[in-house]
Order: sequence, then C-alpha cells, then structure tokens
Amino acid sequence: MSKAPHSVRITPLGSLEVLSQQEVAKLLDAGASGLYPLFRRCALAVLNTGAQTDDANELFEAYADFDVQIISRPWGLQLEIFNAPASAFVDGEMIQGVKEHLFAVLRDIVYVGTEIATERFQLTNPANITNAVFHILRNAHILKARARPDVIVCWGGHSISRTEYDYTKLVGYQLGLRGLNVCTGCGPGAMKGPMKGATIGHSKQRITGGRYIGLTEPGIIAAEPPNPIANQLVVMPDMEKRLEAFVRVAHGIVVFPGGAGTAEEILYLLGVLLHPDNADIQLPVIFTGPAESAEYFQQIHKLIGATLGESAQSRYQILIDQPEAVARELQSTMQRVCGQRREGGDAWNFNWLLHIEPEFQAPFEATHESMAALTLSMDLPRHLLAAQLRRAFSGIVAGNVKVQGVRLIEEHGPFELRGDKAIMERLDMLLRSFVAQRRMKIAGDYKPSYRVVT
Amino acid sequence: MSKAPHSVRITPLGSLEVLSQQEVAKLLDAGASGLYPLFRRCALAVLNTGAQTDDANELFEAYADFDVQIISRPWGLQLEIFNAPASAFVDGEMIQGVKEHLFAVLRDIVYVGTEIATERFQLTNPANITNAVFHILRNAHILKARARPDVIVCWGGHSISRTEYDYTKLVGYQLGLRGLNVCTGCGPGAMKGPMKGATIGHSKQRITGGRYIGLTEPGIIAAEPPNPIANQLVVMPDMEKRLEAFVRVAHGIVVFPGGAGTAEEILYLLGVLLHPDNADIQLPVIFTGPAESAEYFQQIHKLIGATLGESAQSRYQILIDQPEAVARELQSTMQRVCGQRREGGDAWNFNWLLHIEPEFQAPFEATHESMAALTLSMDLPRHLLAAQLRRAFSGIVAGNVKVQGVRLIEEHGPFELRGDKAIMERLDMLLRSFVAQRRMKIAGDYKPSYRVVT
Amino acid sequence: MSKAPHSVRITPLGSLEVLSQQEVAKLLDAGASGLYPLFRRCALAVLNTGAQTDDANELFEAYADFDVQIISRPWGLQLEIFNAPASAFVDGEMIQGVKEHLFAVLRDIVYVGTEIATERFQLTNPANITNAVFHILRNAHILKARARPDVIVCWGGHSISRTEYDYTKLVGYQLGLRGLNVCTGCGPGAMKGPMKGATIGHSKQRITGGRYIGLTEPGIIAAEPPNPIANQLVVMPDMEKRLEAFVRVAHGIVVFPGGAGTAEEILYLLGVLLHPDNADIQLPVIFTGPAESAEYFQQIHKLIGATLGESAQSRYQILIDQPEAVARELQSTMQRVCGQRREGGDAWNFNWLLHIEPEFQAPFEATHESMAALTLSMDLPRHLLAAQLRRAFSGIVAGNVKVQGVRLIEEHGPFELRGDKAIMERLDMLLRSFVAQRRMKIAGDYKPSYRVVT
Amino acid sequence: MSKAPHSVRITPLGSLEVLSQQEVAKLLDAGASGLYPLFRRCALAVLNTGAQTDDANELFEAYADFDVQIISRPWGLQLEIFNAPASAFVDGEMIQGVKEHLFAVLRDIVYVGTEIATERFQLTNPANITNAVFHILRNAHILKARARPDVIVCWGGHSISRTEYDYTKLVGYQLGLRGLNVCTGCGPGAMKGPMKGATIGHSKQRITGGRYIGLTEPGIIAAEPPNPIANQLVVMPDMEKRLEAFVRVAHGIVVFPGGAGTAEEILYLLGVLLHPDNADIQLPVIFTGPAESAEYFQQIHKLIGATLGESAQSRYQILIDQPEAVARELQSTMQRVCGQRREGGDAWNFNWLLHIEPEFQAPFEATHESMAALTLSMDLPRHLLAAQLRRAFSGIVAGNVKVQGVRLIEEHGPFELRGDKAIMERLDMLLRSFVAQRRMKIAGDYKPSYRVVT
Repeated sequence: MSKAPHSVRITPLGSLEVLSQQEVAKLLDAGASGLYPLFRRCALAVLNTGAQTDDANELFEAYADFDVQIISRPWGLQLEIFNAPASAFVDGEMIQGVKEHLFAVLRDIVYVGTEIATERFQLTNPANITNAVFHILRNAHILKARARPDVIVCWGGHSISRTEYDYTKLVGYQLGLRGLNVCTGCGPGAMKGPMKGATIGHSKQRITGGRYIGLTEPGIIAAEPPNPIANQLVVMPDMEKRLEAFVRVAHGIVVFPGGAGTAEEILYLLGVLLHPDNADIQLPVIFTGPAESAEYFQQIHKLIGATLGESAQSRYQILIDQPEAVARELQSTMQRVCGQRREGGDAWNFNWLLHIEPEFQAPFEATHESMAALTLSMDLPRHLLAAQLRRAFSGIVAGNVKVQGVRLIEEHGPFELRGDKAIMERLDMLLRSFVAQRRMKIAGDYKPSYRVVT
Repeated sequence: MSKAPHSVRITPLGSLEVLSQQEVAKLLDAGASGLYPLFRRCALAVLNTGAQTDDANELFEAYADFDVQIISRPWGLQLEIFNAPASAFVDGEMIQGVKEHLFAVLRDIVYVGTEIATERFQLTNPANITNAVFHILRNAHILKARARPDVIVCWGGHSISRTEYDYTKLVGYQLGLRGLNVCTGCGPGAMKGPMKGATIGHSKQRITGGRYIGLTEPGIIAAEPPNPIANQLVVMPDMEKRLEAFVRVAHGIVVFPGGAGTAEEILYLLGVLLHPDNADIQLPVIFTGPAESAEYFQQIHKLIGATLGESAQSRYQILIDQPEAVARELQSTMQRVCGQRREGGDAWNFNWLLHIEPEFQAPFEATHESMAALTLSMDLPRHLLAAQLRRAFSGIVAGNVKVQGVRLIEEHGPFELRGDKAIMERLDMLLRSFVAQRRMKIAGDYKPSYRVVT
Repeated sequence: MSKAPHSVRITPLGSLEVLSQQEVAKLLDAGASGLYPLFRRCALAVLNTGAQTDDANELFEAYADFDVQIISRPWGLQLEIFNAPASAFVDGEMIQGVKEHLFAVLRDIVYVGTEIATERFQLTNPANITNAVFHILRNAHILKARARPDVIVCWGGHSISRTEYDYTKLVGYQLGLRGLNVCTGCGPGAMKGPMKGATIGHSKQRITGGRYIGLTEPGIIAAEPPNPIANQLVVMPDMEKRLEAFVRVAHGIVVFPGGAGTAEEILYLLGVLLHPDNADIQLPVIFTGPAESAEYFQQIHKLIGATLGESAQSRYQILIDQPEAVARELQSTMQRVCGQRREGGDAWNFNWLLHIEPEFQAPFEATHESMAALTLSMDLPRHLLAAQLRRAFSGIVAGNVKVQGVRLIEEHGPFELRGDKAIMERLDMLLRSFVAQRRMKIAGDYKPSYRVVT
Repeated sequence: MSKAPHSVRITPLGSLEVLSQQEVAKLLDAGASGLYPLFRRCALAVLNTGAQTDDANELFEAYADFDVQIISRPWGLQLEIFNAPASAFVDGEMIQGVKEHLFAVLRDIVYVGTEIATERFQLTNPANITNAVFHILRNAHILKARARPDVIVCWGGHSISRTEYDYTKLVGYQLGLRGLNVCTGCGPGAMKGPMKGATIGHSKQRITGGRYIGLTEPGIIAAEPPNPIANQLVVMPDMEKRLEAFVRVAHGIVVFPGGAGTAEEILYLLGVLLHPDNADIQLPVIFTGPAESAEYFQQIHKLIGATLGESAQSRYQILIDQPEAVARELQSTMQRVCGQRREGGDAWNFNWLLHIEPEFQAPFEATHESMAALTLSMDLPRHLLAAQLRRAFSGIVAGNVKVQGVRLIEEHGPFELRGDKAIMERLDMLLRSFVAQRRMKIAGDYKPSYRVVT
C-alpha cells in the first residue's frame, strides 16, 4: 500500500475558499470553543477510508499521533495534516475525494457550531429542527433547485457478506442505468456498493453529474468511514437529524440487509410513516437482498407485524433477488412522488409535507438509565411504539460502535431492556440472529451490548 | 418603445432559488420588519433602467402604482411585479440582466436585514464594519477565489457630455482588450461607458467571463438606475460601506469627469490613502478624460493641492486623452499590486491591508445640523480634513438627488457650509464650475443644495 | 497605437490543432501548389483589422515586407508572422479574435484547396456547388445542429455616415436583445455596427453564445478587413458562393444603406426569390436606415420597380428609423420560417429548399469583355434580368476595390455597360447618387469604374 | 431482463448530426457500394452488449430478423432499428453508451468507405497507411491536442477467470487513481475490467473527463461486443490497422492473461519494438496478472526467449499480483515518454517516431494457403520471425472466432502450420495450455483451428 507522507498541506476548493478575517479567527479559536476535538476525530475518520474495522477506539489508538492544524491564509485557510492513514493517499498525494470529505467535515462542523447551534434556531421547537436540517443540507449544496425527483436512499449494514455486497452493487447499477441517484450513510458494505454500481450505470448512460450523497454524524463516522466515491458528504449534528435528513431528501428508499443500525432506520421510517398525517405521503420503500437474505427479511417482517401491525407492513414491499425490478419499481413511482409534491405545493428536493413527531426528533442519548426507561409496550399507539423500538436499537448501536456507548458498557455492563414479553422475545430473537449472521461487528469476539430483562 | 405588461411573474436563478420555510416567512413578513418599502423603492429603480433622469422623486411619482409582491412557493419564492417601467422589457419579456438585478436587490436587502444588521456584526466596531463589507460582497459572489488582480474601479459622473461618454467607452475598451474587468457605481454616464467598452474589448479577446461589477446603495440607486450590462450588482447598505467596498475590491482606480459625487469619491480615496499606515499601499489611481476635460481636472487638482497638499497629489496621475496609456499603465501595475498582496499575505480579491479610519466608515447623514457642524479647516491633519470635505460633498449629493436630502432642502433651504476662507472659496469655485458644466443635474433648472457661509 | 512586434509565433486552437504528417506536408508545399500567395494576402487583410482604407493595393504596398511562415510541429503547425500591422496587437500580443481569424483563413484556404476544388465536387454541376457551400460552412462550424432559426444576415456599405453607422448598431442591439444572431460580410461600417450592437444586447440578456458570423471571400477581404468581433469567420472561395452562403444560412435579411456591393447583394437576393420555385419561400427581408437614408432606399426601390417590377418589390419591406420594429418584425417571422422548414422537411441551419439558378452560381469574372457582354434588357425574364444586373454591380465593385479589377481599369479605362435605355438611365442615376453620397470609396478622389454606353 | 422494443428510432449526437445531401445520398446508397452489410453486422454486435458468447455466427443466427435502416432527414439522418437484442435497452430505452457506439460504428464505416479507401490514401504505401490510421483516429476524436501522456493500452483475453477479471479491475482502479486513461480492444474480460476499475478510480479522484477508448475491427467486433463503459469507440478497418492504432496511441502497455489474440498482440508489439530503428523508443510494457497467472506468463516468456531472444524479453517487465506497482511504474515512466516525444519533436497523442515495417502493416488474410505458407524459422531476422508468428496467431484467432475463418475450417479442416521443430513444439505447447486453461472459447466444445505439421 502507498505510504502516507508525514505531513501534508491542503487547500480547500468550494465554500471554504473565501473566508473573512472574522471567520478565520473563529476557526483558529476552535480549540477554545470546543469544536477542535470533534473536528480532529471526524477528520481522522474521513482519512481512514477503506478501513476494515468498525472499532472507533482502535482507530483513535492506532493514530494517536495524528494531528490536523488549521492555518490562516490571507485568502482563507489551509489544513496541515500529520501522520494520517496511508489509505487516504496515492503515491503521497491525497485522494481528491478524501480531500473534499475533509473540507466537508470542517464546513459542517463550523456551520453547525456557529450558525445552527445558536439562538437563531431554537432547537427545542420541532419546526426549527426541520429548518436546521434544511439549512445544513443547503449549506452542503445537497438541495439542488429544480432537480427532478431522483434521490434513492439506500440503507443496510456495513458488515455484510460478499454475496450481499455484490447484490447492492447490482441494485445500484440498475438505479444508475435509470438515471437515479444514491444517498447512503456513506460507510462500507451496503452504503458503498450502491454508489459503486450507480457509478458504472451512470457511466454507461453518459450521465456526468451523478450524485452519491453520504449522510453521516460524528458518533458513527469513525466506525463507518466515508467512501470517497461519495461526492457529497454531510456530517449532520446527531443521529436524529441524520435520520430526518434521510427521509426528507429521499424520493424512494431501499433497505438492504444490515444489523441493529439498519433496524433503527427501519423503525424510524415506519414510525414516521405510521403517523396519521403521513397516511397519504408517497414514499416508496423496498426491502431487498439476494436469495440468501430472504430469511433475514422474513424475521424483520415478522417483528414489524408483531409490533407495528399490518398497516406498517403495507408501507413497504419485499423483493428478493430482483435488482432490476427494484430499480424499475422505484423509477415508475417517481412520477407519483413528483405529482404529489406538485399538488401539495412541496419542494422537490426536501419533503416539507412529511410530519415528524418530536419523539423522533429529540436526540436520544443511550445510557443505562435512558435504556432502562424505554417502554416497549403494545399499549402504546403504534407510531410511538416504533419510536421506543427505534431508541432501543439506537442504544444497541451506541453500545456496539460509538465511543461513548462502548465505554459505558465496559464500565457498567450491558444495557437492560424491558417491555412486553411478546415484544421482548421477538426482539431478542432478531438480535441473536444478527449476531449469528455476524451483522454486528467485524473484528474480535462479539459481546452483546444489551440484556433483555423480562 | 416596448410596452410593459401590466403584471409579470419572475423566478429567481441563483442563491434565492432554495429557501427554507423560515426564510420565506421572514421575507413575507418583511412589511412588518420594515424591509419591504426599501425593497420596493430599489426594485423600481432597477426596473427603470436607461431612464434619463436623476430625480428620484419624479420616478416614484411617475410609478405610484408600481408594486412588487413576494409569492411563497414550496421551492422558494417568486416575484409578481405590477406596472413596471417599460424599459425593463423587450416585447413583454423582462430583460435577463434586469431580472438578475432585481433578485440581487432582494438578496442584498434580505442579507443585510437578516444577517448583517444583527448583534453578530456589532457595527460600531471598525473591524466589524470591514468584515460586514466583506460578507456582503461574498454573499453577492463578488469575491472570486484565486482570481488574479484585474478589477479596475471606474468613477465619474452620471451626467457627462457625449464626448466624455465616448471617451469612457474607449478607456473601457482598452481595459477590456487587456483582460481587465470593470467596477463602477452602475448608473449611466461614466458608470456605463467603461462597461460597454470593456464588453467589446472582451469580445474581441474572446474573454467570456468578463466582469462588470456595479456597487450601489439604496440612497443613490433611484437617481442612478443600474445599467443591465453590469453582470454583478451589489446594493451596499450605505454610502460609506459602498465606498469601502470600492477601495477594497479595487486593484486600480480610474476617475473620469463627474460632479459632486465624483468629488466625494476622490476625497474619500485620498483621505484613506493619506493615512500614514497606507503610505506604501500599491493602488494605482489615474484621473483621465478627453481633451475637453483637461480644465476640469486642473480645478480638482488645484483644490486637492490647496487643501490636502502635494503628498495627496502624488497619489494619482492625470492622463488626458490617452485611453490606451491609461489601460497600459494600469495593467503594468497589476504585477506590483499582486506582489504586495503576496508579500503582505493579503487576499487578492479584498484589500484587508488598507487601513480605514472610523471617520470614513461612520455613516454621515446630511442634515442642516450635521452639515453646519463640519469643520473645513487647514488646522486638521490632512486625512481628517479629507474626511470633512468628503462629508461636505456627500451632503451636497444628498441635497441634489437623494429623496431625504431633497426634501430637507425643500423645507429648510440650502445647507450651510462653514470653514477656512481659502478652502471655502476654492470649494465654491469648484461647485460653481460643476453647475456651469451641467454636471449636477440632468433635467430642470439647477437649484444649489448648499450655501457657503464665510 | 500599440507597436507591432517584428515577428511573432502563434499556435492554433481548434480544427487545425491536430494535423497528420500528410496534411502538414501539403501545407508546407503550399508554395508549390499555389495556395501560399492567396493565404499571405488574406492573412495580411485579417491582420489589418480596423484599417480605414478600402484600397487593397495600398495595403499590399504598405506591408510589402509582411510575411507569414507555416512551421511544422510534431503535433501540427504554428504560424510565424513578420512585420504585421500594429492594429492586430495589444501591447505586443495578438488580439485573440484576430488570431482566430488568421487560422480561419488558413483552414478555409486549405479546405477549399484540398477538399473542395477536387474531382469529388464537380463544380460545374449546380447541386455540387450547393453541396460545396454546405461543406465549407460545416467545416467552419457554422452549421449548428438543432439551433432554432436566429441568423439575421445584415448587408450594407462599409463606407457609411456616422449616423447610419450608429443606426446599424441600434438595430443590432435590438436584434441582440431578442436573442437573434448576426451574419455580415465582416468588414467595417454596416458589417460591423450590427455585431457591436448585438454584443451589447446579448450581454444585457446574459446570452453567452452569441454568434457574429462573417462571410468574406479572397477578392474582397483586403478591402473590407474582418472585424475581430466576428467570432466565426469563413472565407468562401468566390463572391457567388459567398452570396449563396448568405441566403442559405439566413433566416431573415436586413439591408442597410450601402454602395454598389450592397446593390449587388440586393439584386442577387431578389433574382433568387423571383424564381417561380421560390415563390412560397419564407425569408423576411427588410430595408432599413435612419431618417437621412429614406431617399436612398427610395432610389433603390424605384430601380427595382422599374426593372424587376412589383412582385420583386413585394419581397421586402422598407422601415425607416425604426430599429425596434425591424427586430420585432424579424423575430415574429422566425416562427413562420421555422414552420416552413419543418413542413418542407428542410434543415434549420441551411436552406436546401431555396432554388438557385446556375446564372447566380457561376462565378462572374469582370473583364471589359464580360461586362460589355451583359444584356440589361426588359425582354429577359425578371429573375434573369436580376442576374444580369447583379453582374453589372459585381463588375463595378471589382473595378472599385478588387486588385484584379482595379488593374484592368487602370490599363484599359472604365468598363462599358450596355442595355435598354430606361434601365441604363436609372442605373446611371443610382450610381451617380452613390458617388455623390460617397458610398463608393473612403480615400482619394473617386474615379468611376464603368461607363454607361447607350 | 428488460425486453427490447420491436423497433426504435434514434438520432445521432456529434459528428453525424449535420450531413450534406450528398453525404446522406451516399449512405442511403450504401447497399450498392457494399457498406450496408458491414454496417448491419457491426451494429448488431454493438447492440449485443454484455453477451456471454464469442460465437459470431450464433449471434447472427439468433438475430436473423434484426435490421437497421438509415432514414434521411433534412438535417441529417436517423437510424431505425428492428428486433435488436434486449441487452441494449433499459426499460425500452436504448442505453446511451450503446447509442453512441452505434453511431461510432456508422461514422467509422462511412469515413473509411468514403474518405480512406479512395485514391487519396494509396494504401500500398506504408507512410499512407500510418496517415490513414491517424485520420481515422482523429475523425473519431481520439487524438486530443495538448493532452499529457496518459493512455495505457490494456490487452488480455475476453475469456478469463473471475480471479483474473477482478485483478484487471484492480489494475484499472490503480491506473484511474493516478489519472491514467485506459484503451482496450473493448470486448469483455480483460478489455472491460480495466475500464470499470478506472471508472471507480477516476470517480474517487473527481476526474470527470476519464477516457475509456475501445479499438475494434469488423472481424472481431461480433465475437467481442464492445462494453458501453467505453466512451470512445473506433472501428478500425482491419486487424493490422487496429494493432498499429494501439501502439501509436499507447503511452504505456499492460498485458493481462489471454489466449491466441493476446499472443498475436504481444508478438506484433515485440516485432515492432525489435526493429533497430525503435531501439530507443520509450514505451513501457508490463505483463501482469494475479498469482494464479504466474505460470501463464512463464510460458509466454519462454516462447519469446526461445524464438525472439533476450533482447525481446528486455522490452517488458513481468509483475505478478502487484496492481499498485504496475500503475506506479507506468505513471513514473510517463515523464520519460513525454521527454522523448518532446526531444524527438513528436506528437504527444500519436507516436509518429515508431517505425513499423510493411510486414506488420499489410493485412493478413488467413486461408489454408496463407497459413501453410508461413515460415516459422529461426533463420529469419528476429523482428521478421515475430511477424510470421504474429500471423500464425492471427490465423488461429480467425479460425476460432471470425466468421470467415470459422467457415473455412468447417469446410476444409484445421489450418496447417509449418516451421522449425523447436519453434513448433513450443508453439504447440502454448496453444495446448490455452485450451487447457479454456482461454480460447467460452461456449461449446473446443475444436482447434490449426494443426502443427512437423
């Protein structure tokens, strides 16, 4: 593999090119304001492209001497980077896509830190949260004016089998052949395959402006380092805003096999769609995988049936081993999506019509207390049960791969989850199957981050 | 002439294309926040392109039934315009350049109203004023990253003779042939000729991205309606920020014959350059005109000599009837400008190194009191005397063409100006010659807006 | 004025960039093949941009030491130019537009010399002549596929009054505002004004791909040096192919005041349109000029009435002092032109449907014999009488400004013209009025090149 | 799989957009001139993209009712296509890349048929053959002016193992990461993998103008249908001109494992490079494959050593299982290639300096007579022995996959090959190993097309 240079200076292209003295001062001041440690962590994650581990701590230990300095220049700034992972370089030159990601990280951290997390957006107000999500995405140039509906959000695990991975490429290829674009969480596995496939599909159709959008957040970026094929990267401030960004930019959603993270995404989505106000929202959802994944989706389907019921099941289709049908189905519904946006007077690039309850917007911080306090009960309205289940999975993900969560587990043992017995059994069964299928962890022995208490 | 349609709807291109619900709400709310009357006035001025009057009141009376409505759309906004001047249209279609100017006006008024005039920029602090000027220009996409120095600011009167006007075209043509770009106050006369000439020069050199930058402000825009050749228009919040914008984006400055407004610009420039901190600043300044303007520049030159002295005179050259030499001289100094920026670590697109005293930054509102309070005394340090003289001319311009100033004069008679006798005599002589040469007013009898009190 | 460098090397952009060894050899061989003297003459004409004389011999004498060498390079060729006119340079650098014209001249001379003047196009066959005209224009990238009809051919004199010149700019401006493009003979006067005006109009409408097409031919290029605003220059092989190119690329035609050359163009056009096969061809023609030109067009109108009759008069409108109406009228007919092309299955960029008789295609070489042999008789069918009249004017132009024709006159005295008395009197009156109005010659005394023999 | 529409009309983009009536007539007349059957065959091959057979006859039989009609339009032409293979379509729309290939085929067949195969290029003269190759490539826009050396020609089999195929993608990826472009024979296998890999590499480096050049010829196109990733396709008139095109556009050459076709390419290349005039030509050549291909290259290496000797062996490196080293090595030599072109005064886009003997240029038509007449003797100068061996492999390829060759074998049995025993034994061993490794044929039993006669 290419060796990394000891240090390298890079110059931004794009929105960070021209900064005022005020802005440069604020950035240099970032240490004081607390933005710097966050930036350093995300920068390292982005530079660790292609890595085959999802253990963030391992990464931070391996590159303890990594550093990134912001250098003030009359016309703006440069970054000086020390001891970065070799995978970010080709013959000593940083890969252009990685360089773009690095400045995307800086852009988003600064924008959120200086423009969003201020009194202007009072983030306790749900409408303000949605506006904040919009502003972050627009600042990252994600919201193309006048583009026709073509953004397909693809979800799925970062740790999937070779067969599943190849299948995600096939689906991406068929999407690309039909001029559709791809948005994922931007890590490896099911987040990378569809982008690669779409790149080849776009290439055959001579589509040059293909979009491969990655939406990540600081807690997950180190465990799922963005792949440089993504040509638009956004670091949302937290998991909930990232999920809201996904469902508001999506014109259609594909779910590939995955682990707890994917389950969290599915439950968030169904929880939102189950809200009565969203009954008529056009948002095609397809669960798909190769033949070997059929069983996996049956388990998910059953959990959904047992907890959220048939109306939730009616919001998605399951298509096994049919990449072309997936793409064709999505393309054919774009017309309807488009029609609804037009009638509802909604924007084409951001689904303002979708109603999202505060339960889905409020950041959930997984602790032993917050996890123990979850109520997984059939007595709740379905969309609120979905919210509780979503949080349960969110906590499990945190306990698996997020630095903070992992530390809590190490100190106090697994999270405890409580609820109706029927739900808890189904849940436990699903999670055990994830473990059995090695969908939770790439390296080392798997130690579950939760314990079902009945 | 083309008839204007009764009403027309137009859709923005560019930065106003994608707005959040929050932003659209703020705009619709503009009535309450007081932005709407300002917008309406500037919009009318922009639509009155090519008009041959500098009497703003006349304009507002002639188009009393003019209206512009902001219409909320899911993807942003539209404007609906009623009873606009016919000169903005060709066969019922709004001229593209006018349309761009209209949205530039909206963009700047909104940006200043919502982002600049807030506690973020505490505009009492000089450094903050400079940052504000920078942010407004950047928001208007004036600050191209990495562009080589090529912006020539051209000043001069809106009411000049045909010979003088043709001469400004010749200078613009020679600038254009050398790949230089033009920035003016964007009105008629000496503000339009250089842009037209440069357009032809760029065309012969096959330069497609030629820049014709217009910097205006709400008080002056109605009297000097922007010409649609300008392909970048910025409405600065007031005269002082407009003047600061001029001198910070300029890589060189050409002064053509003009009236009181031009005198204000000259005094501002010399006042700034006379500051000891700016002694070494590279900023070539050339006064130029056709043979018939030689006398005019002699008078200016003498006033400067008599008040600011030889060191002020050494900051400019006077070149009569030599359009090619003007352009050649400017182009040859670009190398030095460039070198200084590089050494000083300064940006190429914004002259941060230039020191501007608070006296030149603070808005001067011309009233009978403020004008009477001016101290035009040789006892002042030269650069502060320049500041006082600048204000005197600013007040005269206000009394001539600005709505507010004209009303004051109508109600209370001419402003009174006091100072050292030697200065006052020179000043009076100059102003009388402006009147004699019809440099103050296009239509109607000229009634002086000031009275020298000795 | 800028001084020209003694010698300069320039490198082509575009179709001459990549040449085979065979092609380079052919070019270097051009001396032998006889193409070189023609190239040298046209190159000098192109470099003499902006010159105020139409005396080609004067030009060749003034630049007797001018030379241009073709230098073979591995990747193609360069030109080395010696002692060129200073007007082609700005501070020692050749104006980009002039450079393009120089390579356009080379391209066309080589293409005609090697691809057209071969057995492949047997130029005695009328259909082949039309195909040759098409191939030359396509090779020069004039024939844009899929462009909507927008090419307005503007004819008129190179030696017109300032008022007339300013009027041609106004018409060009109004055409440009309406997105129409301009094609002229590419010399000064009425050939340059519309391009300049359209440049400003396009600029206001933010049209960046505006086309300013110049069609010239070797015999006329020296007397009418192309203006570098023209961004597409074609050197047609002779006057007749140039005229055919004009009428086949035109979607509309404007005629400004001019001299004998303009009369030749008018008679060619009417002769073609009078052919019965062309009765239904949509091709709007407008004669226009400022108020002072009204008389001029009356004389032309009468000559046409007296010779070609009312049906010829019905093929054009005369609009005096109405630049906006001219442009509006042309734009409104584009729809009809477009419709006819669609119905007739004709190309939008080349009017194949137009029937042109061999009399109008065959090159006419003006000699004392050929001029004396013309039959200007009312007994001829109208379109053939037009052909004879066209040749008469062509000969007069040759005797005035073409090197060969001028020499013949110097040696043998004026050409003699014969015909019906009524025709000859009208003709003589018209030509005398051209002389009186100084429409025939810029410098020196005017010596008529013809004599009417009755 | 997508169903193909029964018939579809397509319109060209690019050089076929604007045709003269003469050219359209010539195309419609193609039946008479014999171009049509050739066009139909190549068109079918191009539409058969992604097919998993190399049996051309099978293809022609399967699509016996396929047809393509040229429709004359005023502005040029359209194609109407009947009963085309479904793989060319996505949901009834032809893939854009396939459409481009179809018009590339038409363009090249017409150009060769009308411009090259005429008396202008007397193709018996070697210099003329090289000029013809240049003209065909330039007409296909392959020869970019001023591009830096970056074209890596990749050779290798269409029928390779999955491991080998994945390896070709890795090499292409590493080339793409370094900004190098890829040129192949444009079929499946080793001709497609490097293009796919480079597409991903270019995407990560944000290189938008990546070039994937395919060079094919009518005899091979049906057996090796071009992959639509290729964004520049050229149909050279015959195998020899295709080989000359490869070596003249290459700035470096990579050879992957393959069969008889690849052997033909290697022998052609070494034969050319062995010519004394080419001793100093910089043209890096690398044989590479995954670990499992090491043995394959050993056999080739030995054959070359035994026949052409060490000097031939010194012209290439063998790098096993080192995709990054291959790309790094090539990139580092680009500097030297560039230097040599500059010094030698050669074009950067076409290697005029390379000397190619007539033996390598003359088309070799494989018949029982021509194959039997080959002299595979150690008495020949090395570069001529290479020419003989090249023809032997060419004949074997023809007998395997070319329509004409296959028919000959069916009628008269295998070709007979004669020569020195040592050579023949090595040759036979190599060919047997190709068969054993299934490198000769994808479908059906393999029947050898030759017989070694000792």
